Amino acid sequence: MINEKLPKMWYGGDYSPEQWDEETWKEDDRLFKMAGIDVATVNVFSWALNQPDEDTYDFGWLDETLDRLYKNGVYACLATSTAAHPAWMARKYPDILRVDYEGRKRRFGGRHNSCPNSPTYRKYSAVMARKLAERYKDHPGLLIWHVSNEYGGYCYCDNCASAFRKWLEQRYGSLEAVNKAWNTRFWGHTFYDWDDIVVPNALSEEWSGNRTNFQGISLDYRRFQSASLLECYKIERDELKAVTPDIPVTTNLMGFYPELDYFEWAKEMDVISWDNYPSLDTPVSFTAMTHDLMRGLKSGQPFMLMEQTPSVQNWQPYNSAKRPGVMRLWSYQAVARGADTVMFFQLRRSIGACEKYHGAVIDHVGTEQTRTFKECAELGTELQQLGDTLLDARVDAKVAIIFDWENRWALDLTSGPSIALKYVDEVHKYYGALFDLNIQTDMVSVEENLSSYDVVIAPVMYMVKPGFAKRVEEFTAAGGTFLTTFFSGIVNECDLVTLGGYPGELRNLLGIWAEEIDALLPGHSNRVEVTSEQGQLKGSYECGILCDVIHTEGAEVIAQYGEDYYKGTPALTVNRFGKGKAWYVATSPETGMLKDLLAEICREHGIEPVLNAPAGVEVSSRTKEGRTYTFVLNHLAEESSVPLNGERFKDLLSGEEVLESLQVPGRGVRILERL
Amino acid sequence: MINEKLPKMWYGGDYSPEQWDEETWKEDDRLFKMAGIDVATVNVFSWALNQPDEDTYDFGWLDETLDRLYKNGVYACLATSTAAHPAWMARKYPDILRVDYEGRKRRFGGRHNSCPNSPTYRKYSAVMARKLAERYKDHPGLLIWHVSNEYGGYCYCDNCASAFRKWLEQRYGSLEAVNKAWNTRFWGHTFYDWDDIVVPNALSEEWSGNRTNFQGISLDYRRFQSASLLECYKIERDELKAVTPDIPVTTNLMGFYPELDYFEWAKEMDVISWDNYPSLDTPVSFTAMTHDLMRGLKSGQPFMLMEQTPSVQNWQPYNSAKRPGVMRLWSYQAVARGADTVMFFQLRRSIGACEKYHGAVIDHVGTEQTRTFKECAELGTELQQLGDTLLDARVDAKVAIIFDWENRWALDLTSGPSIALKYVDEVHKYYGALFDLNIQTDMVSVEENLSSYDVVIAPVMYMVKPGFAKRVEEFTAAGGTFLTTFFSGIVNECDLVTLGGYPGELRNLLGIWAEEIDALLPGHSNRVEVTSEQGQLKGSYECGILCDVIHTEGAEVIAQYGEDYYKGTPALTVNRFGKGKAWYVATSPETGMLKDLLAEICREHGIEPVLNAPAGVEVSSRTKEGRTYTFVLNHLAEESSVPLNGERFKDLLSGEEVLESLQVPGRGVRILERL
Amino acid sequence: MINEKLPKMWYGGDYSPEQWDEETWKEDDRLFKMAGIDVATVNVFSWALNQPDEDTYDFGWLDETLDRLYKNGVYACLATSTAAHPAWMARKYPDILRVDYEGRKRRFGGRHNSCPNSPTYRKYSAVMARKLAERYKDHPGLLIWHVSNEYGGYCYCDNCASAFRKWLEQRYGSLEAVNKAWNTRFWGHTFYDWDDIVVPNALSEEWSGNRTNFQGISLDYRRFQSASLLECYKIERDELKAVTPDIPVTTNLMGFYPELDYFEWAKEMDVISWDNYPSLDTPVSFTAMTHDLMRGLKSGQPFMLMEQTPSVQNWQPYNSAKRPGVMRLWSYQAVARGADTVMFFQLRRSIGACEKYHGAVIDHVGTEQTRTFKECAELGTELQQLGDTLLDARVDAKVAIIFDWENRWALDLTSGPSIALKYVDEVHKYYGALFDLNIQTDMVSVEENLSSYDVVIAPVMYMVKPGFAKRVEEFTAAGGTFLTTFFSGIVNECDLVTLGGYPGELRNLLGIWAEEIDALLPGHSNRVEVTSEQGQLKGSYECGILCDVIHTEGAEVIAQYGEDYYKGTPALTVNRFGKGKAWYVATSPETGMLKDLLAEICREHGIEPVLNAPAGVEVSSRTKEGRTYTFVLNHLAEESSVPLNGERFKDLLSGEEVLESLQVPGRGVRILERL
Repeated sequence: MINEKLPKMWYGGDYSPEQWDEETWKEDDRLFKMAGIDVATVNVFSWALNQPDEDTYDFGWLDETLDRLYKNGVYACLATSTAAHPAWMARKYPDILRVDYEGRKRRFGGRHNSCPNSPTYRKYSAVMARKLAERYKDHPGLLIWHVSNEYGGYCYCDNCASAFRKWLEQRYGSLEAVNKAWNTRFWGHTFYDWDDIVVPNALSEEWSGNRTNFQGISLDYRRFQSASLLECYKIERDELKAVTPDIPVTTNLMGFYPELDYFEWAKEMDVISWDNYPSLDTPVSFTAMTHDLMRGLKSGQPFMLMEQTPSVQNWQPYNSAKRPGVMRLWSYQAVARGADTVMFFQLRRSIGACEKYHGAVIDHVGTEQTRTFKECAELGTELQQLGDTLLDARVDAKVAIIFDWENRWALDLTSGPSIALKYVDEVHKYYGALFDLNIQTDMVSVEENLSSYDVVIAPVMYMVKPGFAKRVEEFTAAGGTFLTTFFSGIVNECDLVTLGGYPGELRNLLGIWAEEIDALLPGHSNRVEVTSEQGQLKGSYECGILCDVIHTEGAEVIAQYGEDYYKGTPALTVNRFGKGKAWYVATSPETGMLKDLLAEICREHGIEPVLNAPAGVEVSSRTKEGRTYTFVLNHLAEESSVPLNGERFKDLLSGEEVLESLQVPGRGVRILERL
Repeated sequence: MINEKLPKMWYGGDYSPEQWDEETWKEDDRLFKMAGIDVATVNVFSWALNQPDEDTYDFGWLDETLDRLYKNGVYACLATSTAAHPAWMARKYPDILRVDYEGRKRRFGGRHNSCPNSPTYRKYSAVMARKLAERYKDHPGLLIWHVSNEYGGYCYCDNCASAFRKWLEQRYGSLEAVNKAWNTRFWGHTFYDWDDIVVPNALSEEWSGNRTNFQGISLDYRRFQSASLLECYKIERDELKAVTPDIPVTTNLMGFYPELDYFEWAKEMDVISWDNYPSLDTPVSFTAMTHDLMRGLKSGQPFMLMEQTPSVQNWQPYNSAKRPGVMRLWSYQAVARGADTVMFFQLRRSIGACEKYHGAVIDHVGTEQTRTFKECAELGTELQQLGDTLLDARVDAKVAIIFDWENRWALDLTSGPSIALKYVDEVHKYYGALFDLNIQTDMVSVEENLSSYDVVIAPVMYMVKPGFAKRVEEFTAAGGTFLTTFFSGIVNECDLVTLGGYPGELRNLLGIWAEEIDALLPGHSNRVEVTSEQGQLKGSYECGILCDVIHTEGAEVIAQYGEDYYKGTPALTVNRFGKGKAWYVATSPETGMLKDLLAEICREHGIEPVLNAPAGVEVSSRTKEGRTYTFVLNHLAEESSVPLNGERFKDLLSGEEVLESLQVPGRGVRILERL
Repeated sequence: MINEKLPKMWYGGDYSPEQWDEETWKEDDRLFKMAGIDVATVNVFSWALNQPDEDTYDFGWLDETLDRLYKNGVYACLATSTAAHPAWMARKYPDILRVDYEGRKRRFGGRHNSCPNSPTYRKYSAVMARKLAERYKDHPGLLIWHVSNEYGGYCYCDNCASAFRKWLEQRYGSLEAVNKAWNTRFWGHTFYDWDDIVVPNALSEEWSGNRTNFQGISLDYRRFQSASLLECYKIERDELKAVTPDIPVTTNLMGFYPELDYFEWAKEMDVISWDNYPSLDTPVSFTAMTHDLMRGLKSGQPFMLMEQTPSVQNWQPYNSAKRPGVMRLWSYQAVARGADTVMFFQLRRSIGACEKYHGAVIDHVGTEQTRTFKECAELGTELQQLGDTLLDARVDAKVAIIFDWENRWALDLTSGPSIALKYVDEVHKYYGALFDLNIQTDMVSVEENLSSYDVVIAPVMYMVKPGFAKRVEEFTAAGGTFLTTFFSGIVNECDLVTLGGYPGELRNLLGIWAEEIDALLPGHSNRVEVTSEQGQLKGSYECGILCDVIHTEGAEVIAQYGEDYYKGTPALTVNRFGKGKAWYVATSPETGMLKDLLAEICREHGIEPVLNAPAGVEVSSRTKEGRTYTFVLNHLAEESSVPLNGERFKDLLSGEEVLESLQVPGRGVRILERL
């Protein structure tokens, strides 16, 4: 349990009383109660208010707020207010301002705007965290610490440059090692002095964001900036922990956010929390995958849904309203996949600046008469009714998909073979196939212990880090099924090619050699023709993006290409390795083929779907103390029917028993306990 | 009359003799005479020539030019030459150079390039205006002053930053008031010192031009820059007026140019002048609307068509030639809507630099043998024939459309609900419907006295400034019809939301509450289904962009939505208010619905079309001393026929009487005097 | 012969042994021998290695490399290593770093990155060239000097600004002349001091790369930067020549690269070399045209194919593999059009940084077992078999197309009439028509001696430089056929319009006057209707982009427009001039019309196709000592048949005699010697 003070699914969200007056606060109290709200994230953006100048700290408003909330039954998710520095600080200590990718020193503005290597920022954010901890360590309403907010954004200033050189010295030990790691003899870039190294941005080695002349330095700069921002988090975290060792600490993440290696961050967090803002056209399987990734950050530990909108967003091009029922549906989707909280941005809608058209539980009209408020209040009641039933329940999966931020950076940075290759999309193809098959899946890091899984899938495992190949070989030899794809095993952790033939360190396991990599033009495709039928996997499928031209070295050919100069050569192979199998998918096929292939692989391992839900209905289970809770989420506007295959279930909300088949209304949710 | 020295429709344009030699001047004299040209805009870009260094002024060339022109019957629209500073001045006084939106100090180049808060610019432009006024105050050819040229372009330099802080202090009185107006407690942006405020650009609060974190500061910066440029105009204007109080002063505007609040500018101008450069694919109704807006800047006062091309432009992607007859047609379109001059850019085509492929009366070939020259000469003859008949004639309209630059800025800056919402386009939908109905319309400011109108339309009146709601209520109570749309009444003049339910201050008048605003994805649409037929308004229409979900509070439902979760809720309402009616159009419907709705509203007020012209034929009337002149402009390539419904007219150009029906040749013009 | 040391078609490519270890070098030796490689381009990017600090030079690795290669039968194309400055130099002497188009001082990074007017760069690159020349002047393996690499990239720093002012002073003599040449009275840009002139970039006169307010300064800046970079080349060249006067010197060019006037560069080079990187969708006729342009740079002298990929590229969006046979096919295409070398980038694929996915003869797998290696080795054998047969053979053409970089710059910079007008595309339309007709064509400069040609085509000869019109008149008067198009003869070398009617200096020769230039919107077109049938030229053709509205002044009308207001006016004319003819194509017609027109013009002059090859099969001939070698290149995947019309040929590779008809396999090559 995140904090036993509040032994239920936390319900609430961001709350900025400092933008409002006393009269409004009274209304807030009344409406929070009505909506069943029991947690409020406060103090997120109040640094300027808390510290009006260098020597003055004033927490009066916050004292009042925490007291008032607590009196009203609302606990505090207490932020440290360091997500945007005060204007006076920016003017007095310009080192706190970032230099952007174009090399321009920024002025005061925005949020998440501090240079992570600014001495001023590090000093005063630590002081702030310490002061807050000392002041509120004994407050009964203090539930959890929320450090800063949505960390992100890189800096390219001179302080960062110095810190980068030190970071490199620590990582590599010597300039010679750096030169080797980055292959600087290419284009005569050999460094003879640490100070010769400049930050890679639009003024030096990079252009257009992810294009670079030297993958090595660009990759390391991403590692370094992720670590620099993490260091800021850790500085605050340590101050908090020094005073309140038992209060959990988190910071809100952002799913597949590209700039930070969240697996590294997770190691420093007590509990993962994240902000879920799907676009209207985001596939539900993508949102599901993101929840699973957030759960995977700490190897399955339940997480917090820290933010979602109750109604509309404001920063998308077209901000459609969530249709009736969708807020509840997506809230339970989070819970189904491991969330132990349901929280919103935000509780009351602001009147000015850029988020005033972002939805809130309490709208500009200020009353309880809106559809949004009513839906929130109904969900609040439901969550109270659920009590602690679902808290700490775990998701059991026998299939894991590996996701790795450093692999993603390396793929984003690579020059060639095809701009059509998008790592996250390739991962989602495999996840989506399993989602469609109703197979429970974990999203895990390259460092995860694989022994509890039957099937491990590593799409486009381009970068193979030290020890990984060996661990996968052990997993496979012990009876597991490993699957990887084209453009895998190419480079080491420095983005240096593993010589001797692709897929490098995975070649032995896979039993193939990839001689050529052909990139297909937009609109072009090839065919994968199955020559050795495997269950559902038969006939022919479309494929594209990249086609590896491969030769078997022990592997069995399951399918071959149907067109072009490599027609008849292998497109899908499987290699028996010890007691297990290693699959190689040499191209990017249509989802249909992945579903047929993965269905067969799961069948071999006896992995069953959660339920046989029809398309449009999502299912996911959580288990706790021997009990299994199955969520049935109907994303369609119309009622759906799910066959239950003779098993008996109890509906957790209504208490009714369900047999044979389950009816789920359009955009409806059922939570079943297996009897 | 703009200036009684030349009591006819002025005819001429921009003329740069300083780019040519004496031999060419002689040809100019000959050809101007042949073309009927009687006004030349001179000295627009001659600052460097007039003031070759800080201490030297040399107007010899200008003396000669004014004398020569006057001798040849050509008056001077005398510019002040301050539209581009000299290169030496930029080098000596870099404060005159702007800092751009990206924060980069510009170097010498371009035009309209001076920082409006540059002490150097303000000093030397004033001196120049004074010197010109003193030198030419008694010149018989001096017809009108033309200050600078096409003002525009913002600056973000330190001088502007200082001036902005002073402007804010003057506007708000205190930092507390600024903090409140901008809602700076959002994201912890509270300012404790005036110097904490930095200009909003790509280095601070904004990105991509109109995206901003804080609407308040961005909105105020637009106000401030518009006012700063206006201040430059006023400084010169005051110098001119001090010496030549009776010579009118203008500066050429640019229609719907986004950066300047032309209603504020108009207050300082004796006569409006503007440059009309429709693209080939600009709807003729859009050009008509722009003329009407220019007329509306000074509440109906006739204006100057200062520039148009006689043939081609150069700066569009595809610069097609105006087809035979189109130059004359579009010239009369301006006159029909209130212009008392027809002027070109330019009289002779330059040989070098970026405008050498912009058309001119005299082309590079240099002779009178071109189609362009011949068409210009024919029009010159016609305008001489018309004499002073049309001068000062007014346009009478009973329908007004409100346009407001600050509302536009606020809408451009808003984050959400939809990037598809374009204020000018929404305004044009209503204007276009009236244009198609041949209803004469005024384009007016939010400050305009509405009492002379029967119908006032305020599309997307997002920002409601102090007193506006009350004035509209009075107008409606007295019997007028007011119409506004979705996303109206949302914010006050600081872009702070009016709490208590949309449409805020207009809610009482309209008798509705807008609970939700749904943004439609591209390609999506809904239907407006008329439930209470009103004349032509019946059946069902397509709508899109935004759909307000509203509740009536006294208003009558005329139509409802046909689809989605708000199917059956009101989409079009009318509220009886005193003796009048207030309409709310809750979405952006197809033009057909607006035509049917506005036809019905006009019918109720007995507002008649100018003539029942068919599609493609534009009509507009001007009246003077009891006489009405109706312009019939055939924008089609083929002849059209217009029924006259038994009225008798005299053709102003041929003198013939016209009865029953009027034939207008393809791209032809008829001017009829009602008998 | 480029160098008699190696009297055969050189075969090899770029080689970077400094990136590898001794073990790999041994493999290189073995594989080079196996592949028939006899030339290696070395030392391209080794400045940092050769000069680790300001005072130290170390060529040990290069000594070893040249010795090792020579022992293995591989000669050196010895680069000067100055294509990327060392990092230490950038830190110590920042003047070597460029200021970019946006006005930003760059940091260390990339390649081809030195300011061409940097004193540091010029000093140390000269020292390097001198040291290399002195060290290797007697090395038996030294075959040719390769100065720097792919020169390109402009700089906008203060050193460049100063040098630009001096360059202007030298070119124009006085500021008055500059003001006149740039027409600076436009927009009041008159300069009174040299220092008033600032470089034209995004901070002054330009935007979006080629948009400018003043064509004059922008055009001159391109001339100046091209000359500045050329000066860098010349400095090194002079050092090399001072020591090794008999070793040829080159630098590798890049075909139609826009920034450098290669005709000026060619004057300073002993032999042209270039890097051929067609995209997958580059028409083969475009590649052929580029080879012909490279040959034309030195009036037909054979050139070096310095770089091509044996398999894939890495920097294109989609990097498809060269299909089997294509590497050989495209190698012979170069030879067919004048190349005396076949060289690759690169011999061994690098393991790190941005070119690691660029193909190489030796792939990452490191063995001879790849398709790529095998194809390379087969070609190596073939080239050894060919010996010196083809060396120095010339291409004979009676048709020339004029291409001019300054004309291109002027067209790129022009504001109006249409962004659809692309000079290189218009040139390619004419070249492509001749290519399809199998007519051998030369690509020549505006300075080329035209007397050896029967037909000279100058598409969009917008800028007519001094003396050009006279030379074309002489050519035509003597019996030649000259053809030019719309938008020709407009400006002089300063981009100032030639007054008195288009096409200016060409008007007399062409016998027409172009009154108007109409630009067509995208998707719009007109028709060219032939009124005076000429052989195949008959009926009607589509045309677009621009339509000149012209009047004949002696010329005969061959075709007229079919639509719009200029329907019935001339669209294609021919003027008899002395013994010759001058054609004017007033618009941009479809290729079919150009084929019909050019076929007729060639027929009149008795110009025959090389062979009557079908579509998809390219033919080109080289002659030497009375022998003609005809290359037949089948770009189709399927076998093709070429009729030989009774002539007898010998197949150069097989030695067989070929009669009547020739079979060429898909992507196959035949080289025939005419018997």
